[in-house]
Amino acid sequence: MNGRDEILHLLRRYDRYLLGCHLHPDGDAIGSLLALGLALETAGKQVAMVLPGGVPGIFRFLEGTEKILPAPSFTPEVIIALDCADRERLLLPEEVFAAGVPVVNIDHHLSNSMFGDYNYVFPEAAATGEIVYDLLTGGGFGLDKRIAEAIYTAVATDTGFFRYSNTSGRVFTIVADLVACCGISPARIAEEVYEERSYDSLRLLGKVLSTLRLSEDGKIAWMTLSRELMAAYAVPLEETENFVNYTISISGVEVGLFFKEMGPEETKVSWRSKMAVDVSRLAAHFGGGGHARAAGCTIKAPVAPAVEQVLPFLRDYLAGAGLKNTAGEEKSRA
Amino acid sequence: MNGRDEILHLLRRYDRYLLGCHLHPDGDAIGSLLALGLALETAGKQVAMVLPGGVPGIFRFLEGTEKILPAPSFTPEVIIALDCADRERLLLPEEVFAAGVPVVNIDHHLSNSMFGDYNYVFPEAAATGEIVYDLLTGGGFGLDKRIAEAIYTAVATDTGFFRYSNTSGRVFTIVADLVACCGISPARIAEEVYEERSYDSLRLLGKVLSTLRLSEDGKIAWMTLSRELMAAYAVPLEETENFVNYTISISGVEVGLFFKEMGPEETKVSWRSKMAVDVSRLAAHFGGGGHARAAGCTIKAPVAPAVEQVLPFLRDYLAGAGLKNTAGEEKSRA
Repeated sequence: MNGRDEILHLLRRYDRYLLGCHLHPDGDAIGSLLALGLALETAGKQVAMVLPGGVPGIFRFLEGTEKILPAPSFTPEVIIALDCADRERLLLPEEVFAAGVPVVNIDHHLSNSMFGDYNYVFPEAAATGEIVYDLLTGGGFGLDKRIAEAIYTAVATDTGFFRYSNTSGRVFTIVADLVACCGISPARIAEEVYEERSYDSLRLLGKVLSTLRLSEDGKIAWMTLSRELMAAYAVPLEETENFVNYTISISGVEVGLFFKEMGPEETKVSWRSKMAVDVSRLAAHFGGGGHARAAGCTIKAPVAPAVEQVLPFLRDYLAGAGLKNTAGEEKSRA
Repeated sequence: MNGRDEILHLLRRYDRYLLGCHLHPDGDAIGSLLALGLALETAGKQVAMVLPGGVPGIFRFLEGTEKILPAPSFTPEVIIALDCADRERLLLPEEVFAAGVPVVNIDHHLSNSMFGDYNYVFPEAAATGEIVYDLLTGGGFGLDKRIAEAIYTAVATDTGFFRYSNTSGRVFTIVADLVACCGISPARIAEEVYEERSYDSLRLLGKVLSTLRLSEDGKIAWMTLSRELMAAYAVPLEETENFVNYTISISGVEVGLFFKEMGPEETKVSWRSKMAVDVSRLAAHFGGGGHARAAGCTIKAPVAPAVEQVLPFLRDYLAGAGLKNTAGEEKSRA
């Protein structure tokens, strides 16, 4: 781990910066990328904010996302990875690494592999946006409305709009400052990111909810989305991201799963947990990772066999040491 | 309007306080009542927190609600009304007013009738809980975890968990302080108040979403719930109340409708509007009423004919003077 002064020095030292984030970028990835990119640009740097797949539709309301490009237009002196746990998931064209320029890794994932030449990783931060906020304010970079909206979006989305267990007092202090400094509208961001959906995504949600199943003890809920169903509705993948949250919204459910069939032999599994179970450890068993309350993994199988692989493992885990170990924690909720 | 010092003087002057709030108490009413009641009790006062109908189930997790009683056990020297816009909605046994003791009216409703002998009403406050917070901290009353959780619940519920347009920077500053001072868990409160649903209600939601339809111009969305479907799932009617909100969550939709078949010749229609249309006027055409953004009416017909009655009327209205009159307002959202 490098110290804050080292990282701030790197943010001042060079002229040409390349910023990237993780595969399937979410609000924290986009918001952190945008906030740091705009701040460096305002400080007079040449900045390439790069997303080969483009910006997901729901985040395009953020001012500055029009500057995010599929590839860099210049050779950078340094690469900054944001909200990305490992080198394999860093969504940048492979050739940018050829020149061997230093890679700075800024992230909050517990599972971060420390793949950077410089690493600045705080698992206790609610979002990478929180770390970017601390760097910008601590380093004397000015915040403006665009940057404040980007950081707000990062923090709000990664805390489930202030409902997940990573919603700390620090999170509220930061967003209070963002509103005070720059006059951003929390309601507008909530409406853009959270409330607007497409007709097709709601129709698809209806179909997915009809696959909802509950384990006999009521502790596990899961839903599936087959390739056929996905093909029948013109719904961008990111609009299905929050479907998984319905599973843990059920009273008594401890772990919720959403199985998305991405290819003939590929099923993406989203894991959610309420309180008692660290799902990042369970997802890691299948080669994935994430946070205690939200994690993901990919199973090399169609959706039905993927369910058959994951559920028995999870049932055994909950029946065994897993849930017993945390019974005290669970009781303390009552 | 009375000044803060006057109100603080009243909170110190007497020994016996009676606290009440409005009919059908919500999170802000219960939270404000509880926070002020517990703070006065800690300050050595005799306090009666009174709710003739008892505390709604979802708020009973709040510590201290067990002290809320259906009637006062002593004769108060002063009555404090919290989050209550007028005297008629103040939920207290009529006899408590017989002694003619002073009534203190603490509220944030714009429509407040100033019915108190002392009035402390701030429509710019996001919640009455915000006003109570300012009184307690400004008046040197100590906060504790129970009081902090009550105020957090008041503020969080009245801002739609930080998504409505009343979510100010001040709101975030207050909740940051509540977390910092007293170690409350925003995630736990969100889970208690916001997230819990039943398995059957989600399965039913899936079925209802599959009835979702959109008008050709994309401005009207509607869904239906037949008696057969309602009979097939053991879902209490109130758990279907918020289903209608999915209709207006669709991008571009101005008016959303949910048709619930209640009997052989009775269909309840819930109306929702985003910005441009006052649906209380449209519901009134069918003998119903409500607010500009949320209204309801009942049609004496089964669900399919009810849809056939309401939709053409609404289409004509939107095509005619109705939406044109407010086109300016609609544009200003962009």
